[in-house]
Amino acid sequence: MERKMSSSNSPCAACKFLRRKCTQECVFAPYFPPDNPQKFTNVHKVFSASNVAKLLNELNASHREDAVNSLAYEVEYRLRDPVYGCVGLISILQHKLKQV
Amino acid sequence: MERKMSSSNSPCAACKFLRRKCTQECVFAPYFPPDNPQKFTNVHKVFSASNVAKLLNELNASHREDAVNSLAYEVEYRLRDPVYGCVGLISILQHKLKQV
Repeated sequence: MERKMSSSNSPCAACKFLRRKCTQECVFAPYFPPDNPQKFTNVHKVFSASNVAKLLNELNASHREDAVNSLAYEVEYRLRDPVYGCVGLISILQHKLKQV
Repeated sequence: MERKMSSSNSPCAACKFLRRKCTQECVFAPYFPPDNPQKFTNVHKVFSASNVAKLLNELNASHREDAVNSLAYEVEYRLRDPVYGCVGLISILQHKLKQV
């Protein structure tokens, strides 16, 4: 995936938040553009930057965008429902499937 | 919830892993007993101990067990499927519901 930051010369949202230099090798930059800081701060709040970096580094580059999207999805539900997160949705879907 | 560690006098799995004193006020102890160290290390690996502590401290004590269980559920899927985690299961369930 092409680095999006190169066009703006801005550090990515993760590096900006973490106050560090955003290099060409930054594992966050393709998925956390500077114009959406909330996406990173939310993911960092739930999973922590170091865990996300570790996960991304363990994945093939072609899988990283899907991984970030699924993390962001889990985060969205966890922030909305701190007790059950997206597991609440799984319960609802499983219940609906049993009913049909 | 009654502290389980008091009977064994062992620090909980979290305090043992983090090498810190397990006090009566430990927020992890009721949910991470010393006889199941894997449960804590897995949750720590995905969410990090500090985020879990923050989440638990923000919740009413009566909701904490459900919260830990839902985190452990998400962790189980994330370790099994690092790209999609339990969001993969949500997709499958939603797809099945559309089919019926």
